[in-house]
Amino acid sequence: MSRRATSEGEDRRAVTIRDVAAHAGVSVATVSRILSGSYPSAPATRSKVMKAVRELDYVANANARGLAGARSRSVAIIVTSVVSPHYAHVAQGVQTQAALEGKLCIVGTTGDDPERELATVQLMRQEQAECVILVGNVVNNDAYRERMADYARALAAAGSQLVLCGRPTLGPDVPALVVEYDNTGGAYAITSHLLSAGHRRILFLGRREGYTTPDSRVAGYRRALADFHVAHDPGLEIDGTMERSEGYRMIRERLAAGPADFTAVFAGNDLLAAGARQALREHGLRVPDDISMVGFDDLPTAADIDLTTVHVPHEELGRTAVRMALERGSGEAGTGHVMLGTHIVVRDSVRTLKPAPPRE
Amino acid sequence: MSRRATSEGEDRRAVTIRDVAAHAGVSVATVSRILSGSYPSAPATRSKVMKAVRELDYVANANARGLAGARSRSVAIIVTSVVSPHYAHVAQGVQTQAALEGKLCIVGTTGDDPERELATVQLMRQEQAECVILVGNVVNNDAYRERMADYARALAAAGSQLVLCGRPTLGPDVPALVVEYDNTGGAYAITSHLLSAGHRRILFLGRREGYTTPDSRVAGYRRALADFHVAHDPGLEIDGTMERSEGYRMIRERLAAGPADFTAVFAGNDLLAAGARQALREHGLRVPDDISMVGFDDLPTAADIDLTTVHVPHEELGRTAVRMALERGSGEAGTGHVMLGTHIVVRDSVRTLKPAPPRE
Repeated sequence: MSRRATSEGEDRRAVTIRDVAAHAGVSVATVSRILSGSYPSAPATRSKVMKAVRELDYVANANARGLAGARSRSVAIIVTSVVSPHYAHVAQGVQTQAALEGKLCIVGTTGDDPERELATVQLMRQEQAECVILVGNVVNNDAYRERMADYARALAAAGSQLVLCGRPTLGPDVPALVVEYDNTGGAYAITSHLLSAGHRRILFLGRREGYTTPDSRVAGYRRALADFHVAHDPGLEIDGTMERSEGYRMIRERLAAGPADFTAVFAGNDLLAAGARQALREHGLRVPDDISMVGFDDLPTAADIDLTTVHVPHEELGRTAVRMALERGSGEAGTGHVMLGTHIVVRDSVRTLKPAPPRE
Repeated sequence: MSRRATSEGEDRRAVTIRDVAAHAGVSVATVSRILSGSYPSAPATRSKVMKAVRELDYVANANARGLAGARSRSVAIIVTSVVSPHYAHVAQGVQTQAALEGKLCIVGTTGDDPERELATVQLMRQEQAECVILVGNVVNNDAYRERMADYARALAAAGSQLVLCGRPTLGPDVPALVVEYDNTGGAYAITSHLLSAGHRRILFLGRREGYTTPDSRVAGYRRALADFHVAHDPGLEIDGTMERSEGYRMIRERLAAGPADFTAVFAGNDLLAAGARQALREHGLRVPDDISMVGFDDLPTAADIDLTTVHVPHEELGRTAVRMALERGSGEAGTGHVMLGTHIVVRDSVRTLKPAPPRE
């Protein structure tokens, strides 16, 4: 990162924004505007400036770096995968809010590998990201909390801020912001919706013990059963991860083992619901005529298959994460905590079996 | 970026990987492995190393940067939005291939704003990304080609490589790799599929003149009509962008203006198809009983709504882009060109009207 200009007899002196402006025949302010990317500019002007930047090799030197750092720091979000619409919509919220604040947004992906997560956090720190947002489902054990505390302190030391999104808090000693949404409340509400429609045998798809997101959804499911005085049958909770193919597999295996011993399915998310619906259909069972079904997340898939589900404010999670991180200004890293609400979206996937029993 | 260690009486000397190894009580190779993120490591070891890194503030200094640069450079992909499953699946392919090659993957989003695109390319260049992959639909005019040529040369000068994905070539003078897929061929095949089923009035959704992706799909649609000797009716081509809500809008407006004067819909992509299908359904028209429909892309939505569509090898596009970029090794930036094929996926959204006429 120590290349210097060799043009115009100024060997060994770092190229400055003034050199670029002089070379392009425009003002320093114009170069700054164009390089910061915060304002529109005429294509001809941009082209002249870019030509000067290229000819003087301005970008690669430390001044450009300083300029970028001072004018247009970036906001970073790290997700397992961008194919998951859940992550993609949170990332979209981050991008939208970052754009409103005049910041760039970069997304790192980890493929659920802690080593890649670590390397990505370091990359974002080196890049001087103003905040680093980590999203989603985790195993909330000591190793995880220690890793997050490491990140939080390393980022805080570099003037950045760790934000955890859809994850539990780390405690008051760790400089991390937390934006959650109400998984348990949403699962309770949608299970109650099925129970109120008379369903008693409700298959839960996507249990995965130790993982925060499925754990909190299972907790809401069980609490609703208890409040409706329906005995909890662990045989109705099916283990698996949250992909569409898993929903398909779970229902296939269940129906291969014997006839349906349930009247409703609570899929741990909408993708599972889409896969489960396909498996039911291949078995001659229609939703909602034969089997009722609900999901979780309210992703575009839910609208496509007319699924009653729980709306998660994905974009708002991302936007809130950015807002909280930038609001602290240039001060110390913060430790705030926000819990966003969830609500049921009723479509056409639940059939009423009989009047619900009175609730206490 | 010039902070130095102040611990252990070694003020003013940059912390090296040896200091971190000594502090953590592990080998230099272990520290290197853990920081590069290319190998698994025991949590206890990682924890010791991270503690040493934190206490010596190793990450923020130039050595760590050099190490990261030498050992684990990143692969960058820049997309309009990660919410679009089209972009997300290409990004997933990039991530998968990057992981196989032991590289990190970072994703930049631009929201279709050229200024943000420029700033993001610069950021990726500063980050010393090994390649920068730009994806998707563009207006292929002089300003665009000039901008891409600027990027290509600036990245090549920094030892990086521009890769255009799903975009036309820039010509032999520009150091950019190109990975395309066959839009026109796919559109020709799926239109022929409708024509062979007896459809003659086929509504095309999502024309957008000047944009490379819709233009090449419209071209395939028109060529198939011509080959089947069906007169081209421009009134059957509906303008709009590629979102779900647009498909809904287009069909709503069409049906509000008068009864359906078409027997089939060719939606420019699967999201348009999902929106169009909803609008048809609200109007009492079912797919395929009343109106046949096909899409393009073969995204998960297509499986959910049983849509016959054109399969685009999204992940393979991303993987090929990374493979091509890394294959050149540390040599000059390259100018290769690959065209991946597309094919029809038949589901249950097309009804046969009558035997097709003989084709010449």
